[in-house]
Amino acid sequence: MHRSRISAFVLDCKVDDLATATEFWSKALGRPVANPDQDGDGKYAELKTDADEPFLLLQKVEHEPRIHLDIETDDLDAEVARLESLGATRIAFVKRWWVMQAPSGHRFCVVRKQRAEFGAHTNVWD
Amino acid sequence: MHRSRISAFVLDCKVDDLATATEFWSKALGRPVANPDQDGDGKYAELKTDADEPFLLLQKVEHEPRIHLDIETDDLDAEVARLESLGATRIAFVKRWWVMQAPSGHRFCVVRKQRAEFGAHTNVWD
Repeated sequence: MHRSRISAFVLDCKVDDLATATEFWSKALGRPVANPDQDGDGKYAELKTDADEPFLLLQKVEHEPRIHLDIETDDLDAEVARLESLGATRIAFVKRWWVMQAPSGHRFCVVRKQRAEFGAHTNVWD
Repeated sequence: MHRSRISAFVLDCKVDDLATATEFWSKALGRPVANPDQDGDGKYAELKTDADEPFLLLQKVEHEPRIHLDIETDDLDAEVARLESLGATRIAFVKRWWVMQAPSGHRFCVVRKQRAEFGAHTNVWD
Protein backbone atom coordinates (compact mmCIF):
# COMPACT_ATOMS: atom_id res chain seq x y z
CA MET A 1 0.00 0.00 0.00
CA HIS A 2 1.31 3.45 -0.85
CA ARG A 3 -0.03 6.97 -1.29
CA SER A 4 0.30 9.70 -3.88
CA ARG A 5 -1.25 12.99 -4.86
CA ILE A 6 -0.57 16.09 -6.92
CA SER A 7 2.16 17.93 -5.06
CA ALA A 8 2.80 20.99 -7.20
CA PHE A 9 2.22 22.85 -10.41
CA VAL A 10 5.55 24.20 -11.60
CA LEU A 11 5.86 27.13 -13.99
CA ASP A 12 8.98 26.37 -16.01
CA CYS A 13 10.47 29.69 -17.08
CA LYS A 14 13.19 30.09 -19.72
CA VAL A 15 14.73 33.19 -18.17
CA ASP A 16 18.09 34.41 -16.91
CA ASP A 17 16.55 35.65 -13.68
CA LEU A 18 13.42 34.16 -12.08
CA ALA A 19 12.57 37.37 -10.21
CA THR A 20 10.56 39.07 -12.96
CA ALA A 21 8.50 35.96 -13.70
CA THR A 22 7.98 35.37 -9.99
CA GLU A 23 6.74 38.90 -9.48
CA PHE A 24 4.30 38.63 -12.40
CA TRP A 25 2.79 35.32 -11.32
CA SER A 26 2.66 36.41 -7.68
CA LYS A 27 0.56 39.43 -8.61
CA ALA A 28 -1.43 37.69 -11.35
CA LEU A 29 -2.51 34.89 -9.03
CA GLY A 30 -2.71 36.99 -5.87
CA ARG A 31 -0.16 34.87 -4.05
CA PRO A 32 2.67 36.45 -2.08
CA VAL A 33 6.15 35.14 -2.76
CA ALA A 34 6.78 32.57 -0.04
CA ASN A 35 10.39 32.00 -1.02
CA PRO A 36 12.14 33.79 -3.92
CA ASP A 37 15.02 31.29 -3.99
CA GLN A 38 14.10 27.98 -2.42
CA ASP A 39 17.41 26.15 -2.80
CA GLY A 40 19.77 29.15 -2.81
CA ASP A 41 20.76 28.53 -6.43
CA GLY A 42 18.26 30.82 -8.18
CA LYS A 43 16.44 27.86 -9.74
CA TYR A 44 13.23 27.64 -7.69
CA ALA A 45 10.83 30.22 -6.31
CA GLU A 46 7.70 29.41 -4.32
CA LEU A 47 4.41 31.27 -4.17
CA LYS A 48 2.33 31.10 -1.01
CA THR A 49 -0.37 28.43 -1.04
CA ASP A 50 -2.66 27.02 1.60
CA ALA A 51 -2.20 23.59 3.16
CA ASP A 52 -5.01 22.08 1.07
CA GLU A 53 -3.50 23.22 -2.23
CA PRO A 54 -0.67 21.98 -4.40
CA PHE A 55 2.45 24.12 -4.23
CA LEU A 56 2.88 26.76 -6.91
CA LEU A 57 6.53 26.89 -7.92
CA LEU A 58 8.56 28.66 -10.57
CA GLN A 59 11.56 26.89 -12.00
CA LYS A 60 14.35 28.33 -14.14
CA VAL A 61 14.77 26.08 -17.17
CA GLU A 62 16.58 25.97 -20.53
CA HIS A 63 13.61 24.61 -22.51
CA GLU A 64 10.56 26.46 -23.75
CA PRO A 65 8.18 27.78 -21.05
CA ARG A 66 5.57 25.34 -19.88
CA ILE A 67 3.84 24.13 -16.74
CA HIS A 68 4.53 20.69 -15.37
CA LEU A 69 3.02 18.87 -12.45
CA ASP A 70 4.69 16.97 -9.64
CA ILE A 71 3.19 13.88 -8.01
CA GLU A 72 4.38 13.25 -4.45
CA THR A 73 4.45 9.80 -2.91
CA ASP A 74 5.55 7.91 0.17
CA ASP A 75 6.97 5.11 -2.01
CA LEU A 76 8.86 6.40 -5.03
CA ASP A 77 9.58 2.97 -6.55
CA ALA A 78 5.99 1.76 -6.19
CA GLU A 79 4.54 4.97 -7.61
CA VAL A 80 6.90 5.03 -10.60
CA ALA A 81 6.09 1.37 -11.28
CA ARG A 82 2.36 2.12 -11.03
CA LEU A 83 2.68 4.99 -13.51
CA GLU A 84 4.77 2.83 -15.86
CA SER A 85 2.04 0.21 -15.82
CA LEU A 86 -0.35 2.93 -17.02
CA GLY A 87 1.93 3.78 -19.95
CA ALA A 88 4.28 6.46 -18.62
CA THR A 89 8.02 6.16 -19.25
CA ARG A 90 11.03 7.00 -17.08
CA ILE A 91 13.12 9.83 -18.54
CA ALA A 92 15.73 10.50 -15.85
CA PHE A 93 16.38 10.30 -12.13
CA VAL A 94 17.39 13.80 -10.96
CA LYS A 95 18.73 14.36 -7.45
CA ARG A 96 15.79 12.88 -5.49
CA TRP A 97 13.01 12.52 -8.06
CA TRP A 98 12.01 10.80 -11.29
CA VAL A 99 11.21 12.75 -14.43
CA MET A 100 8.61 10.77 -16.36
CA GLN A 101 6.70 11.26 -19.59
CA ALA A 102 3.00 10.58 -20.00
CA PRO A 103 1.56 8.89 -23.10
CA SER A 104 0.15 12.34 -23.89
CA GLY A 105 3.71 13.68 -24.16
CA HIS A 106 3.65 15.71 -20.95
CA ARG A 107 6.74 15.56 -18.78
CA PHE A 108 6.05 15.34 -15.05
CA CYS A 109 8.00 14.56 -11.89
CA VAL A 110 7.46 11.97 -9.19
CA VAL A 111 8.87 13.29 -5.92
CA ARG A 112 9.10 12.14 -2.35
CA LYS A 113 6.42 13.31 0.08
CA GLN A 114 6.84 17.08 0.40
CA ARG A 115 4.93 17.86 3.59
CA ALA A 116 4.94 16.15 6.97
CA GLU A 117 1.46 14.72 6.44
CA PHE A 118 -0.54 13.87 3.37
CA GLY A 119 -3.65 16.00 3.47
CA ALA A 120 -6.57 16.56 1.15
CA HIS A 121 -6.93 14.75 -2.13
CA THR A 122 -4.55 11.88 -1.35
CA ASN A 123 -4.89 8.61 -3.25
CA VAL A 124 -4.24 5.26 -1.55
CA TRP A 125 -3.05 2.49 -3.87
CA ASP A 126 -3.14 -1.20 -2.93
CA MET B 1 -14.04 45.74 -7.13
CA HIS B 2 -13.81 42.37 -8.84
CA ARG B 3 -12.72 38.85 -8.02
CA SER B 4 -10.52 36.24 -9.63
CA ARG B 5 -8.84 32.95 -8.86
CA ILE B 6 -7.25 29.97 -10.54
CA SER B 7 -10.11 28.12 -12.18
CA ALA B 8 -8.44 25.17 -13.89
CA PHE B 9 -5.29 23.45 -14.93
CA VAL B 10 -5.74 22.23 -18.48
CA LEU B 11 -3.68 19.43 -19.99
CA ASP B 12 -3.37 20.36 -23.66
CA CYS B 13 -3.03 17.12 -25.62
CA LYS B 14 -1.95 16.89 -29.27
CA VAL B 15 -3.97 13.78 -30.06
CA ASP B 16 -6.61 12.59 -32.49
CA ASP B 17 -8.72 11.18 -29.67
CA LEU B 18 -8.70 12.50 -26.10
CA ALA B 19 -9.90 9.20 -24.62
CA THR B 20 -6.47 7.57 -24.17
CA ALA B 21 -4.95 10.65 -22.59
CA THR B 22 -8.00 11.07 -20.38
CA GLU B 23 -7.78 7.47 -19.18
CA PHE B 24 -4.07 7.81 -18.39
CA TRP B 25 -4.43 11.02 -16.40
CA SER B 26 -7.53 9.78 -14.63
CA LYS B 27 -5.66 6.75 -13.34
CA ALA B 28 -2.35 8.55 -12.78
CA LEU B 29 -3.98 11.22 -10.61
CA GLY B 30 -6.64 8.98 -9.08
CA ARG B 31 -9.48 11.10 -10.40
CA PRO B 32 -12.50 9.51 -12.05
CA VAL B 33 -13.55 10.94 -15.40
CA ALA B 34 -16.32 13.40 -14.56
CA ASN B 35 -17.14 14.10 -18.21
CA PRO B 36 -15.35 12.49 -21.16
CA ASP B 37 -16.69 15.05 -23.64
CA GLN B 38 -17.74 18.27 -21.97
CA ASP B 39 -19.00 20.20 -24.99
CA GLY B 40 -20.01 17.27 -27.20
CA ASP B 41 -17.27 18.09 -29.73
CA GLY B 42 -14.51 15.81 -28.44
CA LYS B 43 -12.38 18.78 -27.42
CA TYR B 44 -12.69 18.83 -23.63
CA ALA B 45 -12.72 16.13 -20.97
CA GLU B 46 -13.03 16.77 -17.25
CA LEU B 47 -11.59 14.83 -14.34
CA LYS B 48 -13.42 14.80 -11.03
CA THR B 49 -12.21 17.40 -8.55
CA ASP B 50 -13.53 18.62 -5.22
CA ALA B 51 -15.21 21.99 -4.77
CA ASP B 52 -12.10 23.51 -3.18
CA GLU B 53 -9.85 22.56 -6.08
CA PRO B 54 -9.27 23.97 -9.55
CA PHE B 55 -10.83 21.93 -12.32
CA LEU B 56 -8.59 19.41 -14.05
CA LEU B 57 -9.38 19.42 -17.76
CA LEU B 58 -7.94 17.82 -20.86
CA GLN B 59 -8.12 19.74 -24.10
CA LYS B 60 -7.49 18.45 -27.62
CA VAL B 61 -5.06 20.84 -29.31
CA GLU B 62 -2.93 21.13 -32.46
CA HIS B 63 0.16 22.51 -30.71
CA GLU B 64 2.73 20.64 -28.64
CA PRO B 65 1.48 19.14 -25.36
CA ARG B 66 1.58 21.47 -22.40
CA ILE B 67 -0.40 22.48 -19.35
CA HIS B 68 -2.02 25.89 -19.17
CA LEU B 69 -3.97 27.53 -16.40
CA ASP B 70 -7.27 29.35 -16.49
CA ILE B 71 -8.09 32.32 -14.29
CA GLU B 72 -11.81 32.83 -13.65
CA THR B 73 -13.30 36.21 -12.85
CA ASP B 74 -16.59 37.99 -12.32
CA ASP B 75 -15.39 40.92 -14.46
CA LEU B 76 -13.56 39.82 -17.59
CA ASP B 77 -12.65 43.33 -18.77
CA ALA B 78 -11.33 44.41 -15.39
CA GLU B 79 -9.30 41.25 -14.90
CA VAL B 80 -7.77 41.37 -18.38
CA ALA B 81 -6.88 45.04 -17.80
CA ARG B 82 -5.35 44.17 -14.42
CA LEU B 83 -3.23 41.44 -16.00
CA GLU B 84 -2.18 43.74 -18.83
CA SER B 85 -1.01 46.28 -16.28
CA LEU B 86 1.23 43.55 -14.84
CA GLY B 87 2.79 42.90 -18.27
CA ALA B 88 0.60 40.22 -19.85
CA THR B 89 -0.59 40.67 -23.44
CA ARG B 90 -3.88 39.81 -25.14
CA ILE B 91 -3.50 37.11 -27.78
CA ALA B 92 -7.09 36.39 -28.88
CA PHE B 93 -10.68 36.43 -27.71
CA VAL B 94 -12.09 32.92 -28.22
CA LYS B 95 -15.81 32.23 -27.79
CA ARG B 96 -16.22 33.57 -24.23
CA TRP B 97 -12.65 33.94 -22.94
CA TRP B 98 -9.38 35.79 -23.47
CA VAL B 99 -6.17 33.97 -24.32
CA MET B 100 -3.30 35.95 -22.83
CA GLN B 101 0.46 35.54 -22.65
CA ALA B 102 2.52 36.14 -19.54
CA PRO B 103 5.89 37.93 -19.63
CA SER B 104 7.34 34.47 -18.89
CA GLY B 105 5.96 33.25 -22.23
CA HIS B 106 3.19 31.07 -20.77
CA ARG B 107 -0.18 31.23 -22.49
CA PHE B 108 -3.15 31.24 -20.13
CA CYS B 109 -6.88 31.95 -20.37
CA VAL B 110 -9.09 34.39 -18.52
CA VAL B 111 -12.59 32.97 -18.31
CA ARG B 112 -15.91 33.96 -16.80
CA LYS B 113 -16.79 32.63 -13.35
CA GLN B 114 -17.14 28.86 -13.75
CA ARG B 115 -19.07 27.89 -10.63
CA ALA B 116 -22.10 29.45 -8.99
CA GLU B 117 -20.06 30.81 -6.09
CA PHE B 118 -16.44 31.73 -5.72
CA GLY B 119 -15.01 29.51 -3.03
CA ALA B 120 -11.60 28.97 -1.53
CA HIS B 121 -8.56 30.92 -2.65
CA THR B 122 -10.43 33.81 -4.26
CA ASN B 123 -8.69 37.17 -4.70
CA VAL B 124 -10.60 40.43 -4.34
CA TRP B 125 -9.17 43.36 -6.33
CA ASP B 126 -10.03 47.00 -5.66
